Amino acid sequence: MQIARVIGTVVATRKNDTLIGSKLLIVKPLNSNLQEDDAKDIVVAVDTVGAGKGELVLLVTGSAAGKVMADSNAPVNAAVIGIIDDIEISG
Amino acid sequence: MQIARVIGTVVATRKNDTLIGSKLLIVKPLNSNLQEDDAKDIVVAVDTVGAGKGELVLLVTGSAAGKVMADSNAPVNAAVIGIIDDIEISG
Amino acid sequence: MQIARVIGTVVATRKNDTLIGSKLLIVKPLNSNLQEDDAKDIVVAVDTVGAGKGELVLLVTGSAAGKVMADSNAPVNAAVIGIIDDIEISG
Amino acid sequence: MQIARVIGTVVATRKNDTLIGSKLLIVKPLNSNLQEDDAKDIVVAVDTVGAGKGELVLLVTGSAAGKVMADSNAPVNAAVIGIIDDIEISG
Amino acid sequence: MQIARVIGTVVATRKNDTLIGSKLLIVKPLNSNLQEDDAKDIVVAVDTVGAGKGELVLLVTGSAAGKVMADSNAPVNAAVIGIIDDIEISG
Repeated sequence: MQIARVIGTVVATRKNDTLIGSKLLIVKPLNSNLQEDDAKDIVVAVDTVGAGKGELVLLVTGSAAGKVMADSNAPVNAAVIGIIDDIEISG
Repeated sequence: MQIARVIGTVVATRKNDTLIGSKLLIVKPLNSNLQEDDAKDIVVAVDTVGAGKGELVLLVTGSAAGKVMADSNAPVNAAVIGIIDDIEISG
Repeated sequence: MQIARVIGTVVATRKNDTLIGSKLLIVKPLNSNLQEDDAKDIVVAVDTVGAGKGELVLLVTGSAAGKVMADSNAPVNAAVIGIIDDIEISG
Repeated sequence: MQIARVIGTVVATRKNDTLIGSKLLIVKPLNSNLQEDDAKDIVVAVDTVGAGKGELVLLVTGSAAGKVMADSNAPVNAAVIGIIDDIEISG
Repeated sequence: MQIARVIGTVVATRKNDTLIGSKLLIVKPLNSNLQEDDAKDIVVAVDTVGAGKGELVLLVTGSAAGKVMADSNAPVNAAVIGIIDDIEISG
């Protein structure tokens, strides 16, 4: 998983039926110094925890992300699965 | 998922049988400033929403993309699953 | 999927049993200008369409590629699934 | 898999139910000279072996990582699956 | 798949039970000129073909690699699945 910041939302009216009702967040993974970084690609992720803009979140990517969907046929490869309260780094 | 722009199409007459009838789009993911960027690789993706050239779309990659295919044996790792109407970014 | 050019072959006599009889091609994905590019990694992919050296092909990577194999236990993450006849890019 | 060093922990109170009780480590894959490297992204991984800060560990990423979870619905794409005792490199 | 060279081994006494008995190789994928390259990350891969140090091997990564394991619950995302005898590149 990655530590990412929520920076926006995407609206898509015409889309795969399995995505209807899902909120699509734009998130940006932080770099290894826990900073935002233009070189890091943004990701569109399904919100599963009610994350708001500016919050630090736990992002899962790849086919594992699809497990958050009620419909197992949802073609989802990114999801926000937690709101980060605390990060402790040493060394 | 990623935000991408449709920039072309690919025609392959000889191909895996499960792909017959699928439209193959060439899309280009946008960079973190929502710009096109030569450094970003193009992707060939199955169209599932009738996307046209120039449109901004929602792109899913990896094995999750195969879920859009009627035939679960289709070896597909990229699909266009939505047409983007609006992007809101703050911060 | 990616657009790639077939540039060679690999022979491995001692290998996973599920790969016996499969032809292993070396392919090189094209960059976003549809050029070959030393910075792009080569990929060893199972041939499923009888692709020859020099041909432009459709390459699928990741676990989706394994779906082309008759034996679902084949540990394959790259396959050539089409011969490209035509590429149309605009914009 | 990758060789990584444990450098911290993440706490997320609000999260996917399947993650409750899992310890989330922040790990940093080493580069090809077995050094830490700012250019390498940090990864948040589920601990399955009781790894402590500073230890060298075996990191698995991608959907394979989810196999360590008791709940197969856990959307996990990174896990620490071993403590490394010894690395032998030649050439 | 990728062409890689075996450069070492990893020993992990404390590890996921499904990995007991598996030999863990350190391999380094070659670059597009078939050279070793410090910029390429090393990979820890399960050996399935008795590969020795210095040998050129066929490396599979991602969840497909787990198919080589007798225990389908093994969280493995990299495996050596062949010893390369010959590489033929033209163009």
